[in-house]
Amino acid sequence: MVHTGACIASFLGQGGSRKYHLTWKWLRYFKNDRDRRDLITCGAAAGVAAAFRAPVGGVLFALEEAASWWRSALLWRTFFTTAVVAVVLRSLIEFCRTGKCGLFGQGGLIMFDVNSTKVTYSLPDLLAVMFLGVIGGVFGSFYNYCVDKVLRTYSIINERGPSFKILLVIVISLLTSCCSYGLPWLSQCIPCPPDLAEQCPTESRSGNYKNFQCPPNHYNDLASLFFNTSDDAIRNLFTSGSEKEFHFSTLLVFFVAIFCLGIVTYGIAIPSGLFIPVILAGASYGRFVGKLLALLSNLDVSLFALLGAASFLGGTMRMTVSLCVILLELTNDLLMLPLMMLVLLISKSVADIFNKGVYDQIVKLKGLPYMESHAEPYMKHLIASDVVTGPLVSFSGVEKIGNILHVLRVTRHNGFPVIDEPPYSDAPELCGLVLRTHLLVLLKGKKFTTQRVKIGSEITRTFKAQDFAKAGSGKGVKLEDLEITEEEMEMYIDLHPIANTSPYTVVETMSLAKAVVLFRQLGLRHLCVVPKTPGRPPIVGILTRHDFTPEHVLGLYPHIKPHK
Amino acid sequence: MVHTGACIASFLGQGGSRKYHLTWKWLRYFKNDRDRRDLITCGAAAGVAAAFRAPVGGVLFALEEAASWWRSALLWRTFFTTAVVAVVLRSLIEFCRTGKCGLFGQGGLIMFDVNSTKVTYSLPDLLAVMFLGVIGGVFGSFYNYCVDKVLRTYSIINERGPSFKILLVIVISLLTSCCSYGLPWLSQCIPCPPDLAEQCPTESRSGNYKNFQCPPNHYNDLASLFFNTSDDAIRNLFTSGSEKEFHFSTLLVFFVAIFCLGIVTYGIAIPSGLFIPVILAGASYGRFVGKLLALLSNLDVSLFALLGAASFLGGTMRMTVSLCVILLELTNDLLMLPLMMLVLLISKSVADIFNKGVYDQIVKLKGLPYMESHAEPYMKHLIASDVVTGPLVSFSGVEKIGNILHVLRVTRHNGFPVIDEPPYSDAPELCGLVLRTHLLVLLKGKKFTTQRVKIGSEITRTFKAQDFAKAGSGKGVKLEDLEITEEEMEMYIDLHPIANTSPYTVVETMSLAKAVVLFRQLGLRHLCVVPKTPGRPPIVGILTRHDFTPEHVLGLYPHIKPHK
Repeated sequence: MVHTGACIASFLGQGGSRKYHLTWKWLRYFKNDRDRRDLITCGAAAGVAAAFRAPVGGVLFALEEAASWWRSALLWRTFFTTAVVAVVLRSLIEFCRTGKCGLFGQGGLIMFDVNSTKVTYSLPDLLAVMFLGVIGGVFGSFYNYCVDKVLRTYSIINERGPSFKILLVIVISLLTSCCSYGLPWLSQCIPCPPDLAEQCPTESRSGNYKNFQCPPNHYNDLASLFFNTSDDAIRNLFTSGSEKEFHFSTLLVFFVAIFCLGIVTYGIAIPSGLFIPVILAGASYGRFVGKLLALLSNLDVSLFALLGAASFLGGTMRMTVSLCVILLELTNDLLMLPLMMLVLLISKSVADIFNKGVYDQIVKLKGLPYMESHAEPYMKHLIASDVVTGPLVSFSGVEKIGNILHVLRVTRHNGFPVIDEPPYSDAPELCGLVLRTHLLVLLKGKKFTTQRVKIGSEITRTFKAQDFAKAGSGKGVKLEDLEITEEEMEMYIDLHPIANTSPYTVVETMSLAKAVVLFRQLGLRHLCVVPKTPGRPPIVGILTRHDFTPEHVLGLYPHIKPHK
Repeated sequence: MVHTGACIASFLGQGGSRKYHLTWKWLRYFKNDRDRRDLITCGAAAGVAAAFRAPVGGVLFALEEAASWWRSALLWRTFFTTAVVAVVLRSLIEFCRTGKCGLFGQGGLIMFDVNSTKVTYSLPDLLAVMFLGVIGGVFGSFYNYCVDKVLRTYSIINERGPSFKILLVIVISLLTSCCSYGLPWLSQCIPCPPDLAEQCPTESRSGNYKNFQCPPNHYNDLASLFFNTSDDAIRNLFTSGSEKEFHFSTLLVFFVAIFCLGIVTYGIAIPSGLFIPVILAGASYGRFVGKLLALLSNLDVSLFALLGAASFLGGTMRMTVSLCVILLELTNDLLMLPLMMLVLLISKSVADIFNKGVYDQIVKLKGLPYMESHAEPYMKHLIASDVVTGPLVSFSGVEKIGNILHVLRVTRHNGFPVIDEPPYSDAPELCGLVLRTHLLVLLKGKKFTTQRVKIGSEITRTFKAQDFAKAGSGKGVKLEDLEITEEEMEMYIDLHPIANTSPYTVVETMSLAKAVVLFRQLGLRHLCVVPKTPGRPPIVGILTRHDFTPEHVLGLYPHIKPHK
């Protein structure tokens, strides 16, 4: 759902699709980096809000995990988005209560109602909860470790071609089916408890008491977990007042199975998530611990299941505030809040000792140049010019077409400094920064001159601002689309109208750590490094996100040991 | 409570108090701007968390209203703070349940339990809620307008001296007493409803049915609101299933009285807040509207009271996410979430048409140079050097003591650029920025030289980093404390060791709007403006927070019309 929300938002952010006639004029206002980024954040928030019916949790998820560049306006916007989600969801659920939508719509706005148990706790309970937090941290980091290893293996398999992808999916599906069907055979049949409000054994699709090859009036507790939707399995585990319902062995087998299946399933070529398997595994070991400690602690096993789920989520995803709120909204029990906070903080702290959160691992695995919000300690010992690499490619204020085309062809840079040289200025000085996309649009307009002259105002008249709006991915003017004749190659174009004349700059002797903070806090793409002493070219280099990554910096200075 | 929390945090942030022997060694790590700011944010969050027993609400309050400079580490820290608050609060409440603490501790972690009513709503209900949102917006902005006017009057009175302050407090107290005691006479006595679980009329201190001069077995509904603690009055208004309990006239009189008393009370010389009067007023008109629309809407009047409180809070304070969560945590009813979000968004949007939020107004009234997180539109038409004013005062890398003392005496600047001149460099160049406090510490150390020489390493050996730690307010070395002889005045000191050699800089031609974003996002105090063309002094000026305020910019350029 998070992906879906983000995809829809990205689709709107690139102005819809002209091919499928899904485009509106007002969407063009979003065709810029910032609005698109904001929209995608809102989309992710809407996804969480819809999936877990947790509007506030969605806002906090967007804040904690999705947005790397947060503004108070964004808080407002994500809140509005999730409010709309909540209202729409609510009306659809109301509509579906009448029975027109099949199974959809059952459950109401609160999915798992554990409200029936009263929460009072004393010191031994707190100790039990802390114990659960530590377990969650250890299991969570182990889970992350395994997911990372498995994903690396899968990416090798998946790269071999579609047939390998499909084969992998088939193998995993078979494995899952075998586990789901085979494992319940290991479990014993339990006679149905008397005086039960619910039907036993269950006959409909959902329910807590699956018969599965048992004699009449008996049920198989492992089958009750495996032969259900994940939602119902979670609800079963969260059920209170039924301490005898699940055997120790059942919970253990289920935990191991879900733990392993969750690891091997993530990363195959089907849409699959992390949240639900992690909640299932966490709830099962939580309930297990709850049954173990039944003599010591007064807390209900259902609360242990909930806290187990929280601890495992905290151990894998390392979110605290948003997970806490999502779980509270899932269960509608604010009295659990202190315990939930405690367990999340402990599991996150314990897991942070071993490795990073699962999302961070995936980002790293995909090779995306994600920048941490803080500077690494070793960056304090470097200056900005230390990490500037490669030959600097710059343009004159009025540049020859041939030069521009050559540069666009041989480099993959996206930003180029424009330098004003005599006679347009007394000495060479940095005029601004032009973007590759804007250059391509400008070249396509063919406002060329035969002489080196400034024709800025003429260009401004020809183009409209929206011509330079960010095109959808894969859209926009491409280098191959340009048809420049030999004659035009010798002509000139004035780059001043499209230059960003106020690029953020740092002096070359600026501490790298401070340059990183500047780059990250302002959400830049290019940072110009200017010389400290006069009499040199007006720009030393351009820093992009890649230049700040630990791989790049430590590649240049391998003797610097990064402290953990 | 927010103030108290922030004060305690600030106290810790300045290293405790040596006078009262409340100081610890480890507190010195917080003696810098950033940690102090973070601590105060956490303190404010803890205050909200404790006052409303709303830990997540506290985190969001800190995010939305308190922190102007947000980092993900801060989210973690505020969350941890409020988790501790929640656990401590919870254990104290448990301890007090045994009856050892008097009235304290009654009510549990959830203050107003409106959970008993079932929330289902249809289109007319939504319309009624929207109507409530609009009313809240209008009343809220009017409340802000009045508070602003009254505060301006009070500040004139309060400036006249302590006796005037006390007189003002006495007048307001008398007025409040007269209203509280006088107004219930206007209300009629109501016979106690039969079959009541509660005692009627109430005999203990809290309760819904105050007798107040009525015959036996009767109660006065207005007295039930006035003669209670605010907590109990709010709980009365939030009570469900008692539609007949309050007359229309009662609610109206109570609303007008609380509205006016709230306005005149805020700003007198006693600790008083905004939250509780606003919730009371909002709940009373919410209940009024609920009674009015009883035929149209199926929602319970208690829910109307809650939504009324939300709408009025949204209209005055203009927070959305944090208010929503605080109210949800107060009432423990997540099913209200969509309605609450709707009413908050509407009331905030409506009120934003008229004026600013009450906190923004107070900040402006106090003359604090608060910077909005976004740049004003007119700033796009200015460049950084346009707002640089005043003669620039700078120091040489090795400066004469007499010069430094003279500058420190005649200016009130806090940051001074240090410029290296020949023979230490080929041409004058910006070496860095020194702070007034650091200069004073350095001067006190008296590491002077008779010649212009660099003795950097010697100074570094003499001082420890913590000598330059930020002192508590009113502490630290003062200019008057320095005892410099006539002879020393002619000596020199090396400023290089204390200069920040990586100050953030902008070129003079940088768009002012972009300079503001840089300044605000990085939480700077000083921003150096450097010249674009070579051959001029290496620094054009220093921008501080005051230089970016609309008052300063529009004072320099009165012809620029700020768009609303």
